[in-house]
Amino acid sequence: MKTKEMLSTHPQRPPVEISGLTQCIEALWDCAVVCTSCADACLGERKVQELTRCIRLNLDCADICQATARVLGRQTQFNVQLVRSQLESCVIACRVCAEECGNHAEMHAHCRICRNACQNCERMCQELISRFAA
Amino acid sequence: MKTKEMLSTHPQRPPVEISGLTQCIEALWDCAVVCTSCADACLGERKVQELTRCIRLNLDCADICQATARVLGRQTQFNVQLVRSQLESCVIACRVCAEECGNHAEMHAHCRICRNACQNCERMCQELISRFAA
Amino acid sequence: MKTKEMLSTHPQRPPVEISGLTQCIEALWDCAVVCTSCADACLGERKVQELTRCIRLNLDCADICQATARVLGRQTQFNVQLVRSQLESCVIACRVCAEECGNHAEMHAHCRICRNACQNCERMCQELISRFAA
Amino acid sequence: MKTKEMLSTHPQRPPVEISGLTQCIEALWDCAVVCTSCADACLGERKVQELTRCIRLNLDCADICQATARVLGRQTQFNVQLVRSQLESCVIACRVCAEECGNHAEMHAHCRICRNACQNCERMCQELISRFAA
Repeated sequence: MKTKEMLSTHPQRPPVEISGLTQCIEALWDCAVVCTSCADACLGERKVQELTRCIRLNLDCADICQATARVLGRQTQFNVQLVRSQLESCVIACRVCAEECGNHAEMHAHCRICRNACQNCERMCQELISRFAA
Repeated sequence: MKTKEMLSTHPQRPPVEISGLTQCIEALWDCAVVCTSCADACLGERKVQELTRCIRLNLDCADICQATARVLGRQTQFNVQLVRSQLESCVIACRVCAEECGNHAEMHAHCRICRNACQNCERMCQELISRFAA
Repeated sequence: MKTKEMLSTHPQRPPVEISGLTQCIEALWDCAVVCTSCADACLGERKVQELTRCIRLNLDCADICQATARVLGRQTQFNVQLVRSQLESCVIACRVCAEECGNHAEMHAHCRICRNACQNCERMCQELISRFAA
Repeated sequence: MKTKEMLSTHPQRPPVEISGLTQCIEALWDCAVVCTSCADACLGERKVQELTRCIRLNLDCADICQATARVLGRQTQFNVQLVRSQLESCVIACRVCAEECGNHAEMHAHCRICRNACQNCERMCQELISRFAA
């Protein structure tokens, strides 16, 4: 991804260090993409009935990560309060989805990859929140 | 919109009364649509330079309302904690956007309509949060 | 929805009559919302296994209608070629989804409502395409 | 991105070779992310008035690439006709946006990066279309 190049060539500076911001934005997009795929992979499994909670949380997590990534990618007139509350909501979406994917991680490799992506994303969001607090 | 019909024909019941849920989902979609249009109308104004904060917050509010509307529209395995935190983030996005649109409401009718849509959406989200708390 | 008010207060005029444009934009949002709900209602059904194709096409149709609605809602520097090709793709997404929902319309009321929303949206997109061609 | 891992662990096989599909999906996400950033970077420039067409096309291209990426990422019950028409629309969105960004590429580095991302995405979409035709 060209996240860092785009942030570096932006006419306005973000209120936090670019490398931390880049890591979080990329983790959010990764998580959105993986959750979209995991929902679809679960839908294609023979025992889809056992995966409906996973599909639902995948779709929620994909939508929330994507909105958060779009908001965080905007540096013009950055609003810390708005960004923080959206990051906090994203932490919860990632945690709940990671827990559910974890229940199927031994059976389905896509759920294992998705659990890891959600856990990574949750961690990056929390790190960024702590930087705003400082 | 067919929100109520869709919620009523869903095989699972939501954890709150359908009429309140319907009102909130429709306010979220309205707000997302109006914010998307307001960003574009501001972009088309001669004095766009004075409206960059408005455009930025319109785009954020559109993305956040849309994600919240998609999440809230799903009744299968409804997760109250996730929904509440997303509604709380949406309240802030709507409030910040309404304030900024309010600054241009006398000059631009699209900002006036948008401020009203954001204020209505904020109120509906808060009412729904209070129902979950009960 | 406030679609017409937003189009009327926009500083730039669209290249087609506002009432036809309004109808198409509202049909697109309706279809996106109904398809998102239908995917979730299908996911909540006991025989979800028989509805996986319906869920997949609902999700596609929701994403495509939503992108088309956002593009069509922008009047600043309207690009007819881009809008037309996206409308043409949307016609196909709506048609394919309506056909699949039609297969389950007698069994599930949500599929019946969704088929109607897709058919209405397909018709509105085609009418708008014919206006651009004129 | 984990695109290839997700496609490889999916229970159903896509109708085209996984490596070509992976490249196209990743080009689509890259383009969506870069276009979202470029719209915002343009909005933050002092001479935003000269960049309104660029912002508008960035937003369109971001929305269309994102919808296309989501659709293409789903392998369950893959519908070639729907995917092809959406890819064809995406080719046009990328081409129009690349042309406009190209007009500002000497002045703004973010427009140069964005033009390249759009051109790469257009090429990947066309390659994938040609594989479906074969």
